[in-house]
Amino acid sequence: MGPYSVTRLLLPEIEELLDSAPEDLADVLEEIHAADLAELTHKLPRSTVQQLLAALPPALSADLAEYLSDEARSDLVSELPPDQAADILEEMEPDDRADLLSDLEPHEAEAILDEMEVVEREEARQLLEYPETSAGGLMTTQYVTLNVDLTVGQAIERIRGAAREGAEVIYAGYVTNGAGQLTGVLSLKDMLAENPNSIVGAVMDQSILSVSPLIDQEEVARVISKYDLLAIPVLEPDSGRLVGIVTVDDILDVLVEEGTEDAHRMGAVEPFEEPYIKAEFWLMVRKRASWLLVLFFGVFLTSAALKHYEAQLERAVVLMFFLPLIISSGGNSGSQSATLIIRSMAVHEIELKDFLRVFYREIKMGLVLGLFLGVCGFLSTFLWGMALPVQVTVTISLIAVVILGTIAGSMLPMMIAAVKMDPAVTSAPFIASLVDVVGIVFYLEIAKAIMGI
Amino acid sequence: MGPYSVTRLLLPEIEELLDSAPEDLADVLEEIHAADLAELTHKLPRSTVQQLLAALPPALSADLAEYLSDEARSDLVSELPPDQAADILEEMEPDDRADLLSDLEPHEAEAILDEMEVVEREEARQLLEYPETSAGGLMTTQYVTLNVDLTVGQAIERIRGAAREGAEVIYAGYVTNGAGQLTGVLSLKDMLAENPNSIVGAVMDQSILSVSPLIDQEEVARVISKYDLLAIPVLEPDSGRLVGIVTVDDILDVLVEEGTEDAHRMGAVEPFEEPYIKAEFWLMVRKRASWLLVLFFGVFLTSAALKHYEAQLERAVVLMFFLPLIISSGGNSGSQSATLIIRSMAVHEIELKDFLRVFYREIKMGLVLGLFLGVCGFLSTFLWGMALPVQVTVTISLIAVVILGTIAGSMLPMMIAAVKMDPAVTSAPFIASLVDVVGIVFYLEIAKAIMGI
Repeated sequence: MGPYSVTRLLLPEIEELLDSAPEDLADVLEEIHAADLAELTHKLPRSTVQQLLAALPPALSADLAEYLSDEARSDLVSELPPDQAADILEEMEPDDRADLLSDLEPHEAEAILDEMEVVEREEARQLLEYPETSAGGLMTTQYVTLNVDLTVGQAIERIRGAAREGAEVIYAGYVTNGAGQLTGVLSLKDMLAENPNSIVGAVMDQSILSVSPLIDQEEVARVISKYDLLAIPVLEPDSGRLVGIVTVDDILDVLVEEGTEDAHRMGAVEPFEEPYIKAEFWLMVRKRASWLLVLFFGVFLTSAALKHYEAQLERAVVLMFFLPLIISSGGNSGSQSATLIIRSMAVHEIELKDFLRVFYREIKMGLVLGLFLGVCGFLSTFLWGMALPVQVTVTISLIAVVILGTIAGSMLPMMIAAVKMDPAVTSAPFIASLVDVVGIVFYLEIAKAIMGI
Repeated sequence: MGPYSVTRLLLPEIEELLDSAPEDLADVLEEIHAADLAELTHKLPRSTVQQLLAALPPALSADLAEYLSDEARSDLVSELPPDQAADILEEMEPDDRADLLSDLEPHEAEAILDEMEVVEREEARQLLEYPETSAGGLMTTQYVTLNVDLTVGQAIERIRGAAREGAEVIYAGYVTNGAGQLTGVLSLKDMLAENPNSIVGAVMDQSILSVSPLIDQEEVARVISKYDLLAIPVLEPDSGRLVGIVTVDDILDVLVEEGTEDAHRMGAVEPFEEPYIKAEFWLMVRKRASWLLVLFFGVFLTSAALKHYEAQLERAVVLMFFLPLIISSGGNSGSQSATLIIRSMAVHEIELKDFLRVFYREIKMGLVLGLFLGVCGFLSTFLWGMALPVQVTVTISLIAVVILGTIAGSMLPMMIAAVKMDPAVTSAPFIASLVDVVGIVFYLEIAKAIMGI
């Protein structure tokens, strides 16, 4: 992007100003989008970024902090004196502020909270009660509320006031009653389209879409995306009290985050939050070793299965040549099925009640793909000059393991979802390991039947 | 969600009204969000949905069509008489209208275009020039333009006019000159915060973020998401002329779509657009069979490798017991690395220039994970009562293949990205197949060296 490359030219200037005239920095950096500045800081030594955060006016530091990665900003802020950190946090959006506090050590967060103004402190404490990946953890408490008997003109004036104060989210007014319950929503668009003398209560939208604070962020993303919303109100489930709103910009991040989590799970890596390149080495070792260990003992069963057929293998070592081919083919078709089903469930294209439909479809698919690979196997063993019994054994085994793979790959994720776990834990390698063991038994039993050994 | 379950109760009523008094349908359905109505239509026979689209006023049918899946709406609209279809399309958002037209057969699209009003027709033809997955394919041509010497108060009046006409996107005004070039942007928020007598040219934002029409939708998503935008203008690259804007609601869909595409690729399925359950069976067979075939011939090389070691395997059949274990361990660690790298590249956490850093990290990772699985292998073969030379062979082979897997899994995607292809084509099964072949050679050579056979 253009702006970023231009910004990059400023690096030497920033470093020089930090040394010579830090008070001039604000003027230079005000022209740069905070997102670009955040990207720039990756090129600067950490101590320089630290200096920068301390030297800028708190409002600019807050802007910058909002665009830094969770990890980078908690590292940076934890090293500032608590009162300076508090000044920056007070200027941040309530949702980012709470996220940042929850990433700090509890004693660090407490020290900063103690230095904050009472309003911001209470707001932060309230948001900190919700898990980070829930609607409550995503929501902001900065929005415009309206009284039901205002005129539309007065409502626009309230929005105008919020815009002057620099509020981020002003594209709707939330109509609440004395008990703080949400009774309607009036979008800024509708305010502008209406007669300014109309009464808010008469023109507001009463069919309110909302979520409750403990709902998972993935579900919030689904609702916002389904209805093409810019924001959704968060209501306490029992009282119906409005406690915050979740905005679409946070949902973009959620979608990327959830995509990463699913990708990691399907690749048999325990999900983690940090970017790959910054994640701590031993943390990553643990995230990977845990699954490798599970898979190791899974596949170790193949050794036991093969030992069981020792005599047979000694008599026909030729069987061994095709063993990897057969188990891989089962594993690959199983990975395909698992990928398709897990992704379809993640985006709610299929649900548990579609179990039977998926089952029939995948059996049919397994049959067709199995026949296809069977033919490939028959031809390639023929061209390689194998004896007919070997050819037939390989062909039938391929058909059998591919059917087995598609069934296991499609049904296991659905069964795991049925017990309320994330289907993505049935990673492709997991399916492959399972199919390996059963595939070996299939293959050697088929060989026994056909080749008579 | 609440609204949906309520809506569901309306099904019998809708069906009855369709038969008895279709003219009353509009009153009932106006109360339902079009997104819910679209979901409801999944429960109705196709002929009923057809009837519904024809019976509703075009504006309501257009709303409904905007929320239907690409496939469903093109099927439905293609069966309406062209003049009726044209009435509905005229009421749709320009970007959805163009998407729908591009999903139809060319002669169907032409027949409908011929029946459309000239303004909408020209607009549609212009949008149809861009690929569906480019910024041009995503953008809408419905936005508010401003003249540089308007006052802010007049600009607000223009927005107000657009809101009254029911324009979707009114949260910014785009300032263009006589040549149609974009010279600035003024958000509605800033208009409201400014003095109504200020001149647009003096207060507009001139550091414009924009994309060009042919840029890929994934890149548009990245920019919108990075800068937390509600919309981004699309400019013709040479002239700087404003040709449309892309809005954030379309970006939500893009992120989900791209996530699905990556997931499919990594699971060795050629990407396809339709939801899994609705995709045509033989299309799906092709999407899967093509990769299975590639992988089949990849793994077939293992057969050749094993044949090469025939004599050795005959002398020590025990070696076979651990063959699947060893190649799977390599494949699994390779899948992990590939997953991590491909996902990190997809979300731009790492880039090609990080090659060496990733390389060192993955070698170190391979060594640690290899030692870990080596110890597991040593212990389990010991407990199983294997002879020491077998134990040592298995242990060393495990270490070697895990290192091999992590290197192949991390480097291949980066090398593929270096030649400008999508790194996700190096699916986990692809890496596994590759590691299988090399793993077998490693294993049997190590056995030769240690066991002397």
